[in-house]
Amino acid sequence: MKDGLDLPTFDDVVAAHERIAPHIHRTPVLTSSYFNALTGAELFFKCENFQKAGAFKVRGACNAVFGLDDEMAEKGVATHSSGNHALSLSYAAGRRGIPCHVVMPKTAPEAKKAAVRGYGGIITECEPSTTSREAVFAEVEAETGAEFVHPYNDPRVIAGQGTCSRELMEQVEGLDAVIAPIGGGGMISGCCLTLSTIAPEVEIYAAEPEQADDAYRSFKAGRIIADDAPVTVADGLKVPLKERTWAFVSNHVTDILTASEEEIVAAMKLTWERMKIVIEPSCAVPLATILKNKRVFAGKRVGVIITGGNVDLDKLPWMVV
Amino acid sequence: MKDGLDLPTFDDVVAAHERIAPHIHRTPVLTSSYFNALTGAELFFKCENFQKAGAFKVRGACNAVFGLDDEMAEKGVATHSSGNHALSLSYAAGRRGIPCHVVMPKTAPEAKKAAVRGYGGIITECEPSTTSREAVFAEVEAETGAEFVHPYNDPRVIAGQGTCSRELMEQVEGLDAVIAPIGGGGMISGCCLTLSTIAPEVEIYAAEPEQADDAYRSFKAGRIIADDAPVTVADGLKVPLKERTWAFVSNHVTDILTASEEEIVAAMKLTWERMKIVIEPSCAVPLATILKNKRVFAGKRVGVIITGGNVDLDKLPWMVV
Repeated sequence: MKDGLDLPTFDDVVAAHERIAPHIHRTPVLTSSYFNALTGAELFFKCENFQKAGAFKVRGACNAVFGLDDEMAEKGVATHSSGNHALSLSYAAGRRGIPCHVVMPKTAPEAKKAAVRGYGGIITECEPSTTSREAVFAEVEAETGAEFVHPYNDPRVIAGQGTCSRELMEQVEGLDAVIAPIGGGGMISGCCLTLSTIAPEVEIYAAEPEQADDAYRSFKAGRIIADDAPVTVADGLKVPLKERTWAFVSNHVTDILTASEEEIVAAMKLTWERMKIVIEPSCAVPLATILKNKRVFAGKRVGVIITGGNVDLDKLPWMVV
Repeated sequence: MKDGLDLPTFDDVVAAHERIAPHIHRTPVLTSSYFNALTGAELFFKCENFQKAGAFKVRGACNAVFGLDDEMAEKGVATHSSGNHALSLSYAAGRRGIPCHVVMPKTAPEAKKAAVRGYGGIITECEPSTTSREAVFAEVEAETGAEFVHPYNDPRVIAGQGTCSRELMEQVEGLDAVIAPIGGGGMISGCCLTLSTIAPEVEIYAAEPEQADDAYRSFKAGRIIADDAPVTVADGLKVPLKERTWAFVSNHVTDILTASEEEIVAAMKLTWERMKIVIEPSCAVPLATILKNKRVFAGKRVGVIITGGNVDLDKLPWMVV
């Protein structure tokens, strides 16, 4: 760890990788001659949609859970999330045999609650407001003594996410650039942490929905700007940067590119059609930005992080009217 | 080749494999701890949905196209199909730079016609009846002199499909059984051809929709029984066995298992949800039959052929009312 923000170092990534290896997949890297021809770049898709619990977030969650000493672990872990972090933390806690408390708005879809419970997570419902969530979460924490694991603004989580780009660099030689979606910035921070140490020549691009472009505007302004309840199909990318992820993003990201809702949905559908893989809307944002910024990527070998595959198959975005 | 039916031998499979290698993918084998726990078996999914043109059929099509001498090749190839064989033959012909004529009913979905044209296929439309199809096809053949490549009842095609189980045996050690869907029987015949030679101890199961169970009834009756226009969501499996595929099925298949429409759709959706791969309804039939015949497969290492991933994403079977 270094400085007042308690930022993780690459040594923490290496330690994380060893710690989580028994609990995660070393996910495959896929290529597509169709997308190479379409973009003029050579794309290498790191498929975290095939990851345990269906998303890269299990890396950070496992690192946090398996890094606890026995006494702390006994009281369990806690978080507030209705997305992949809640699933991943529940999975990780289940592997260690400790409780995982998740605070979720009572309005969250039943399917998401069922998925968290399916991994053993214990849900406490709150009203759909920040005030209620914080109050209920404080109660849960006080009652259980569980360790809070933030979805991304946590050094253990960032170090865990850094293992993904480390694997990618082992799997593909001579990458010129890596691109990943940006929401709170956990994955991108992990990329920055790892690549700035082991491959500082590799460019790092972050991809964001135009309708939730707080990271883009923060990057241009040089300070964190948070959006108020943005609306986008890429629902994993609505959250704002926090101080730890901002430290990485502001220091190491080459550029942030954005795509419209239509471009995101089109890239998502095209990926399903041509690559035959199920990816979340969030994961389609990088490809959407590559397609509209071909000159940036042409002739380059580009790692594309496919962050997850947890989709409601009954409600696909190209079918919603 | 042997006997009056002109059946291919394993030497033909080996020759096919060498011939088609530059034009096909050696597709990956995926596993799923979720499905292993659910079935009590160890399943190895051979992912031909990631194959060129989106299905295993490109193996047989490439073997037929690249086995032609230059004089024959110049006139091109022809077939009647509105499915994966038409796509695959168009792809193979395109790779060789020769024409591919496809006779399709004018009522076939525009998306399928567009996909064939996207691979360079030349479509001639017929009325949606066998009489019209045969008449129009005879005309096309006479006019062009193109070589007819049947979707499955062709020794070159069967030898090509035999390369899939050959790869699977190289990729996974100690398989006890292999299961694949059965329609016309091209893939299953390829499995029979290869496995009866290199691994005769491996059991071969064929999986079929209850609503198009002509192979099942043929197998029980000991002679080919053809259905009259069966209706099933597994639209790749509606066609009947022919004499060459029947020769393999009747001699080497261990058993044929069937599943209902509901079971097929449920297995398909579950595969998308848990494995994050896009598979056709036809490919879900093997998993559906494993789930309802757990005792047959429990404790065994089972290769499951995922035959293709060409799906109309705007019309998924669990959404159709």
